[in-house]
Amino acid sequence: MWHAKSSRADRPVCGFGASTLSFVAMQTESHNFTEQSIVIVGVGLIGGSIAAAVRQRFPECHVIGIGRNQDRLKLATERGLLTEWSDQISAATIPDGSLAIVCLPVGQIAGAVRQLVDADCKLVTDAGSVKACVYEALDDASRGRFIGSHPIAGSEHTGFENADADLFVNRMCVVTPVNAATSNTERIVGFWKSIGSTVQQMSPDAHDRVLALTSHLPHIVAAVMSGCVAAELLPFTGTGFRDTTRIAAGSANLWTSILLGNATHCVASIDAAESLLQKFREAITTGNAATLESLLEMSAQRRRTL
Amino acid sequence: MWHAKSSRADRPVCGFGASTLSFVAMQTESHNFTEQSIVIVGVGLIGGSIAAAVRQRFPECHVIGIGRNQDRLKLATERGLLTEWSDQISAATIPDGSLAIVCLPVGQIAGAVRQLVDADCKLVTDAGSVKACVYEALDDASRGRFIGSHPIAGSEHTGFENADADLFVNRMCVVTPVNAATSNTERIVGFWKSIGSTVQQMSPDAHDRVLALTSHLPHIVAAVMSGCVAAELLPFTGTGFRDTTRIAAGSANLWTSILLGNATHCVASIDAAESLLQKFREAITTGNAATLESLLEMSAQRRRTL
Repeated sequence: MWHAKSSRADRPVCGFGASTLSFVAMQTESHNFTEQSIVIVGVGLIGGSIAAAVRQRFPECHVIGIGRNQDRLKLATERGLLTEWSDQISAATIPDGSLAIVCLPVGQIAGAVRQLVDADCKLVTDAGSVKACVYEALDDASRGRFIGSHPIAGSEHTGFENADADLFVNRMCVVTPVNAATSNTERIVGFWKSIGSTVQQMSPDAHDRVLALTSHLPHIVAAVMSGCVAAELLPFTGTGFRDTTRIAAGSANLWTSILLGNATHCVASIDAAESLLQKFREAITTGNAATLESLLEMSAQRRRTL
Repeated sequence: MWHAKSSRADRPVCGFGASTLSFVAMQTESHNFTEQSIVIVGVGLIGGSIAAAVRQRFPECHVIGIGRNQDRLKLATERGLLTEWSDQISAATIPDGSLAIVCLPVGQIAGAVRQLVDADCKLVTDAGSVKACVYEALDDASRGRFIGSHPIAGSEHTGFENADADLFVNRMCVVTPVNAATSNTERIVGFWKSIGSTVQQMSPDAHDRVLALTSHLPHIVAAVMSGCVAAELLPFTGTGFRDTTRIAAGSANLWTSILLGNATHCVASIDAAESLLQKFREAITTGNAATLESLLEMSAQRRRTL
């Protein structure tokens, strides 16, 4: 199936359909943006935000959304996030030369990449939070056309209704090319820069090791903190508890696939946290004020640099 | 020494001196507020916010600030937070019938309460985060005139410059009377209600046990998380890390006295966190998706109720 909202000629050029998005023809820095069409597989918060970012900055670019739920895709199209949509990945739904971006949960990325490559898509990236396990799950043909990306941006909210055209502005995006053609890497890096990101290249394993500490451990720690406080004690929490646990409200299903997809590095990051927790425990148990204050001060100084 | 900003007659009634505070004669619910004068020992964020709350709602009440630094006290007076100030606790600086509120770090509260009682202050409360250790450090005479309070409100910021007249609105304040006269307990409860708080009475030990989980553990966990991420990895953190670690930026000195003042319950709360952390570790190590998702879902559901 193939559904265009309208022909290119009569497609509205001055407004998203509804919602909070307002169209501004903001061709700030083009970063040599040359994409004629972007295929987004999975139009949720991240996919929707990529769509919004492209539509706002590059109104001439086709933005094709692919997902399972036709009603949701129609709604995203009505709201101006997509120019076309389809409920399946096939050669007919992917214009020649498209850049495809898979915005699905970690466990579903490799399968979608394989389908895109089978449909003759030449270059595929993703937006997942774990990288090595995706490369491992690809066949050789797919691996040759895939360059992993991880835009470090998000929210505990889900769905394209929460899409934000500026979600990636001034945020880091890690790109993890493995034996990719330089021109393809440049194209992916250029894409993320064109929607506002800063880009850093890293190996998939280095990415996973770093993110286990900077993103996956915070989620575990927030979940542990939330899990430690019984419901009847919640009235005695303050803003500190609220902030510390905010991300624990995220999707348990999504985070299960992230943590299991990066199991080895996540366990190492838990070990690091436990080791430091034991230092706090020891200092409190022994009443060692100097050690406790220096542990707290080290953490405070680091946090204040952000 | 005794320094009045101005006589009652010519004291400005229509504005705080400067800063972000704007005066509104907001006599919302008086809750039978009958205080003629409030003495605040320690005019920092919490003391300053109490001052601001009283000045905004009850402009006829004297608000006397006591601290060590004359320049700071003068500045707080110029900004309209205080009507009078002094750099010492003495009978001459405490009007008859004053309610005194000690807003000092935990380790300094008992000493200040003793001085206030020596200066014949009839009723003293505080705003500290730990309660049992304060009662334990009081002599009998002081214990008879003290009722501990803990307004669960704050910020990682310090100083009266960050004072907020509405800091306590809709926030819980725990009051911990021990053998206190009913009329005195009612007066303290009424005071906190009059500046917007919800009040819950609890024994000092029950307070400390609850707050170890709801407030002190979040600080430890935030500090551990901040401490686990080396400075060179900070560019790879996102909003999740920022929120999870925000409170770790607080004063290491203040938090050392809080954690050591509540050592036994804090260690128990660390044990609870470690036990749950081990469940996450086990589920990730064994690839047990069902268990991991149910652990994450439990935490997510609890967090979503806030």
